[in-house]
Amino acid sequence: MSDTVLVVGGGPAGLAAAHAASTAGKKVALVEKEDILGGAPILSGYAKLVPSGEWAKDAIGRMVKRVEDDSNVTVYTSTMVEQFDGEPGSFTAKLSNGDSVDAGAVVLGTGFTHFDSINKPEWGFGMYEDVVTTTQVEQMVGRGEVKCPSDGRVPERVAILLCVGSRDRQIGREWCSKICCTVSCNLAMEIKELSPETDVYIYYMDIRTFGLYEDKFYWKSQEEFKTKFVKARIAEVTTSEDGRLLVKGEDTLVKRPIIIPFDMVVHAIGMDPQDDNPEISKTFGIGLEQHGYIARAEMYTNTQGTTREGVFVAGAATGPNDIDSSVAEGQSAALRAVATINGVAEKKAS
Amino acid sequence: MSDTVLVVGGGPAGLAAAHAASTAGKKVALVEKEDILGGAPILSGYAKLVPSGEWAKDAIGRMVKRVEDDSNVTVYTSTMVEQFDGEPGSFTAKLSNGDSVDAGAVVLGTGFTHFDSINKPEWGFGMYEDVVTTTQVEQMVGRGEVKCPSDGRVPERVAILLCVGSRDRQIGREWCSKICCTVSCNLAMEIKELSPETDVYIYYMDIRTFGLYEDKFYWKSQEEFKTKFVKARIAEVTTSEDGRLLVKGEDTLVKRPIIIPFDMVVHAIGMDPQDDNPEISKTFGIGLEQHGYIARAEMYTNTQGTTREGVFVAGAATGPNDIDSSVAEGQSAALRAVATINGVAEKKAS
Repeated sequence: MSDTVLVVGGGPAGLAAAHAASTAGKKVALVEKEDILGGAPILSGYAKLVPSGEWAKDAIGRMVKRVEDDSNVTVYTSTMVEQFDGEPGSFTAKLSNGDSVDAGAVVLGTGFTHFDSINKPEWGFGMYEDVVTTTQVEQMVGRGEVKCPSDGRVPERVAILLCVGSRDRQIGREWCSKICCTVSCNLAMEIKELSPETDVYIYYMDIRTFGLYEDKFYWKSQEEFKTKFVKARIAEVTTSEDGRLLVKGEDTLVKRPIIIPFDMVVHAIGMDPQDDNPEISKTFGIGLEQHGYIARAEMYTNTQGTTREGVFVAGAATGPNDIDSSVAEGQSAALRAVATINGVAEKKAS
Repeated sequence: MSDTVLVVGGGPAGLAAAHAASTAGKKVALVEKEDILGGAPILSGYAKLVPSGEWAKDAIGRMVKRVEDDSNVTVYTSTMVEQFDGEPGSFTAKLSNGDSVDAGAVVLGTGFTHFDSINKPEWGFGMYEDVVTTTQVEQMVGRGEVKCPSDGRVPERVAILLCVGSRDRQIGREWCSKICCTVSCNLAMEIKELSPETDVYIYYMDIRTFGLYEDKFYWKSQEEFKTKFVKARIAEVTTSEDGRLLVKGEDTLVKRPIIIPFDMVVHAIGMDPQDDNPEISKTFGIGLEQHGYIARAEMYTNTQGTTREGVFVAGAATGPNDIDSSVAEGQSAALRAVATINGVAEKKAS
């Protein structure tokens, strides 16, 4: 019988779960495979987060500090869970550093893997220096300058291509990545703030700024920051004779081919299932859904459940997700973990 | 000092919060203004839920039963909170039935109000009997028959109009209602299952089947159930000489006017802020955001917080939301409430 919650993954979901379980009176072991906590927003150097507008390093940094400063939380970085056995109330995890952790319940906040644009070769990434990803532009914004990688010039015209590695059956990505539309509307505004002379175009199939993101990101980007939205099917990205990038496709609103020259083309990359999911599935004895994300249990009365009792999941591990929902799910999973431990303890006591 | 969590609202978020707080060892007082628990899915008679495909009465019914059977939860139906005072650890709520409840923390799961289609008069609701809402069609599906209200005939052709009361500045609804696209794709499939001869058209601006809803609802509805998607700006709904309904607008993909006759026109109604929010705001001393939803606190380290310490919020009360997220947020808010009570107790003990 262990009073510890094992949290795997130190991104927004895992950080939220670790802190939450601690505030509810449990010990926490937080295991992160990278050498620092923070997950994708920190490791990939995100700029200002959607929808808060706060810098990732501040917002997620605050979550990291809160966990690192918490004497109830033992943090293991550069560490993975290699073996896992037991049952609710008394699991044992063997870690890659040789340690063994007893835990009453588990929260997996193991996240996603960014789509690798190399897998969409006709859109120019890896071929042209000035074709970059949203992540790379977030890093540029973080440094306070948006410049073409090839020669350092400030781009006169930037294209953001949505759904790179999303909604694309040809490359086996049948899902939508949920948050790239909103992130891209935000990124267009950040580019414009840094470089008011730059024109930003967003190429889209549908703009999915759901809920309260509609006016705060889509309308604002269009009306206040003059982002141009082009509904199009993109065929390819090539170069013109003068070396500029050409985005070729069909404008699906006028049903005509369009070719527009750009200085920089940005891939709004999607969220693949975490590369490690096959191993995570095997180690923890849990199922994956058809696309390779971690399978969720029935959602109404086994919320954050996986296919294994006592093992819960939160955040983008179960499918593309935004940070706010991942944090809420992390806290939600912590509640389940705490209740599991309390329930087993009561049963033993009675 | 009270060990009770006061939960206001008996829909998915409140039910999740009430159960979760109980499993974490707290007493719960659940206050619901209607005479039964279940919230919108039960009160409005939803059919099969997105994305589980389970009937609302079963899925949400299970959540209701779990709470009603829980001896740690005291349920007050047909009751409202009329007065609220105190501080974290020791709040007091005066109820409309004369009772007084002491609570250490509060979760508001006070939900939303369906948009009233009467406020979009040019689209025919209230004028033509066969112009109905998604809620009404859900009820028909629940009864196992989709029929035109005017004469009971099975419709040959049904139009579902998206964004009724959403993304519409003219009528002060600047937000997207997040889940109507997915619900409508699902509803089209349910109609087709009951009546394979019926053709269903969905009129849209953007199809927002985010995340894993893309292939499970949008593609499936299109490919397996032959739902026709028409990107259009709708001008009005009128009638033809033979009494059929005419949907008039511009097909924005071909930039041409289109007029198609239908037997039934369905408004995919959006999610307004809860009508009671001004009173809720006043009673609980919490802020509202610009559209009238309950304002959220900083999301990263005060998750599910409102502008008042010890008062938390979950679900569609803070903006359009889906059931799955509302349930997760309910559980997440319960964790905060539990931790608040434990924290105050520890402080007093030390």
